[in-house]
Amino acid sequence: MTTQKASNHINNFVKKILETFNYPSIPSLHYMTEALRTDLYQLTMMQAYWKSGHNPEATFDYFVRKIPFGSYLITAGLTYVLEYIENLRFEDDDIEYLRTQGFDDEFLMHLRDLRFTGDILAMPEGSIAFPLEPIIRVTAPIMEAQLIETFLLNKMNFSTLIATKASRVVYAAKGRAIAEFGLRRAQGDGHLEATRATYIGGCASTSNVLAGKKLGIPVSGTMAHSFVTSFDHEIDSYRAYADAFPKRCFLLIDTYNSIEGAKKAVIVGKELEKKGERLLGVRLDSGDLCELSKQVRRILDEAGLDYVKIVASGDLNEWKIDELMKKGAQIDMFGVGTELITGRPTPALDGIYKLSDVVEHGRHIPKMKLSEETVKATLPGRKMVWRVFENGSFKQDVISLDDEAVDNGIPLLEQAVKNGKIVCDRPSLDEIRQIAAENFSNLPDKYKKLDGAPVYQVEFSPGLTALRETIVEKIKREE
Amino acid sequence: MTTQKASNHINNFVKKILETFNYPSIPSLHYMTEALRTDLYQLTMMQAYWKSGHNPEATFDYFVRKIPFGSYLITAGLTYVLEYIENLRFEDDDIEYLRTQGFDDEFLMHLRDLRFTGDILAMPEGSIAFPLEPIIRVTAPIMEAQLIETFLLNKMNFSTLIATKASRVVYAAKGRAIAEFGLRRAQGDGHLEATRATYIGGCASTSNVLAGKKLGIPVSGTMAHSFVTSFDHEIDSYRAYADAFPKRCFLLIDTYNSIEGAKKAVIVGKELEKKGERLLGVRLDSGDLCELSKQVRRILDEAGLDYVKIVASGDLNEWKIDELMKKGAQIDMFGVGTELITGRPTPALDGIYKLSDVVEHGRHIPKMKLSEETVKATLPGRKMVWRVFENGSFKQDVISLDDEAVDNGIPLLEQAVKNGKIVCDRPSLDEIRQIAAENFSNLPDKYKKLDGAPVYQVEFSPGLTALRETIVEKIKREE
Repeated sequence: MTTQKASNHINNFVKKILETFNYPSIPSLHYMTEALRTDLYQLTMMQAYWKSGHNPEATFDYFVRKIPFGSYLITAGLTYVLEYIENLRFEDDDIEYLRTQGFDDEFLMHLRDLRFTGDILAMPEGSIAFPLEPIIRVTAPIMEAQLIETFLLNKMNFSTLIATKASRVVYAAKGRAIAEFGLRRAQGDGHLEATRATYIGGCASTSNVLAGKKLGIPVSGTMAHSFVTSFDHEIDSYRAYADAFPKRCFLLIDTYNSIEGAKKAVIVGKELEKKGERLLGVRLDSGDLCELSKQVRRILDEAGLDYVKIVASGDLNEWKIDELMKKGAQIDMFGVGTELITGRPTPALDGIYKLSDVVEHGRHIPKMKLSEETVKATLPGRKMVWRVFENGSFKQDVISLDDEAVDNGIPLLEQAVKNGKIVCDRPSLDEIRQIAAENFSNLPDKYKKLDGAPVYQVEFSPGLTALRETIVEKIKREE
Repeated sequence: MTTQKASNHINNFVKKILETFNYPSIPSLHYMTEALRTDLYQLTMMQAYWKSGHNPEATFDYFVRKIPFGSYLITAGLTYVLEYIENLRFEDDDIEYLRTQGFDDEFLMHLRDLRFTGDILAMPEGSIAFPLEPIIRVTAPIMEAQLIETFLLNKMNFSTLIATKASRVVYAAKGRAIAEFGLRRAQGDGHLEATRATYIGGCASTSNVLAGKKLGIPVSGTMAHSFVTSFDHEIDSYRAYADAFPKRCFLLIDTYNSIEGAKKAVIVGKELEKKGERLLGVRLDSGDLCELSKQVRRILDEAGLDYVKIVASGDLNEWKIDELMKKGAQIDMFGVGTELITGRPTPALDGIYKLSDVVEHGRHIPKMKLSEETVKATLPGRKMVWRVFENGSFKQDVISLDDEAVDNGIPLLEQAVKNGKIVCDRPSLDEIRQIAAENFSNLPDKYKKLDGAPVYQVEFSPGLTALRETIVEKIKREE
């Protein structure tokens, strides 16, 4: 019995046992591989490569053409790509499904044994990247390199988008904590990786309890309007909550009227003091947050509750937070939901994965795509990205060919996978968050501006520039 | 041994077996319940309800304040909510995690046994809904009703958003098929439910093979630029593909120059004819799609290949498709990715879940939230939604109190859950898609306009209007 067969055998056995105990469903047995999480054309192209005997070693670059907001990206998602690479295989039921879609039997037999055997270079998670820079470079037999494209794009595009958005929101708050409150507006099952990315980008906590359990992110929350309205009187709801959570009591004060709510919070705060406890905070969720926060601050301070924090929420984003901070709002913590968790107003990163090199008969053939739209052209050849520092800060980056060196440059792509095996460090989520914070602190302030940040300089090396010109000429001549 | 303990025992046993076979991970053992897929404050409020002995039967409405695009919503996501309700329970490791977060031991013991025991009324999936109309109405002990809020919002908001977006894109294409190509730009793990929603909204197929396997959605695809550039010459790539898929060959023609690409496609199309096969189509992915499609159509027709279809893709959305159709583009099928799969430019639906009624000592106490922002106020009381037809088309809707009737109105909320058990039909995905199409055909055309559609009339019944006024007065007096 092969391991494959044995494991199917076990799967069925396990299914039976669990069914006995009336378990609802066993998604793991299907989830264990995500090989079919790809575009159909990857598989049809694979069959065409396979049938034509054309499966050269190919290099693809993952990069972003245009930054959706601001001047930089915080990269995220590599952890998912590495887990996928490690576990990539087609299970029997994947193969059976593909058979129903008209794929060739012999090709499907080949697919059953396929594993990823290539090399991957990547910027570590939490890096800062700029347009056109290869963030991940994949070299593998073209069938394998093609198969992984869709998963890689799906994961990297989304995590990088949200980590970047989060870093902007965090920056706008100038040291005030950002609590991520977006689960209810997140794009469905994408919620966990979105929350993970907001944490990498610098958010302090999440409302998402599953993210707390699975990823170890600190969880935070207050109360909802329904809690307040479910009681006969607002103050009854405050007392019930203070009684249940005397040591971490936050009260929502805008259900009926924020000023009246603040006065009732003072009463409950005083009652907590008598029990030797302290009210932690109050939350504003509507109205003129700047003006209300100042009035509420005064009410709290005059009552001797200067230690009580003010949390604000309600359709916030980096621009609104920036404005609130500039107008002197008395807000200690911001709860940010929809815009943070979806990357609104730009919910997708246009990251792409383009062929740059093919090896045929031992010879490198650099590849590129031309286009009627110049912006859609790509950079040929196996490449490296370098960062040049000045007084500890980023000065400029250079994209070079693999065999060129850049004076005083630090190479940004590290070997992550070698012959299909993960060879890089696997930092924890907190370590990745720390790496992102350190990188961000070395980015000069002018690039952090919410709007109108200058374009960071990314040069092409002499070798890359020359290669590009040669290939454009060749394509124009031949096609 | 209780069933709970026995099943944990089995889980550990299963874990060991699978580890022996070197399985990467066993997500099912954690995935089987999504009880922690909620906001922390739901759980803290639950503990406060529990500690204060205040757990009245409460009614919550799920509704949308503002439609993100156009005048209507196509509802989707109910299937997920019902599956969640059926399987809702806290597992041992959920309880252990909550213990680390400072929850009360006795409360956690209560949580371990908690199941959803309430009633749910809902519009069937694929309904058309308008602002303020309850799409789902939940009645349950407030602890349970509160717990499910976040999951319900997460799933309903996203699926409804994307189904609505899809129906606009499909409408703009005036009968031309829409192929969903968005996996690479989808928000991570949300891809499957997003694809499902695009299918409910009327898309014909998806590139997402996993969605094909798991949901039975037709899959489609062509080839990538990398396939073309990996060969020495464009025509070599076409021949390799035609050889591998003679019966379903689509050729991408814009890698170097779309017109030259079309001419090479003609050569390969003629070669296929000699083998008794037919080239199915060519794809344009950049440039002036309208002008190119006309030129390519002419090239194909003049060569006798009038049966070859033209597929267009490249950052399309409902507005661009509408313009292409109006300008007479010769396009037979549109591939739509990013904007469709993320709901761009509005990637979140602002659907909310608000308390409308509490039963105390056998008496209904209607509830509502006031707000400094009038738009954030809610509708009190247990309600029903009615639709009035005129000549088979929607004329207007009425929101009433539960005990009111509306002349000639058809009630839109159906009983979905009774005492925690699912009691409604569970239509297949294809049936849901059909329901949506039928509803859409009964919506008068003026409401389908991409921009500037009139507001569909949704009236409040006399009873609801009177109740609302009474409660506003009462709150203003008391708080």
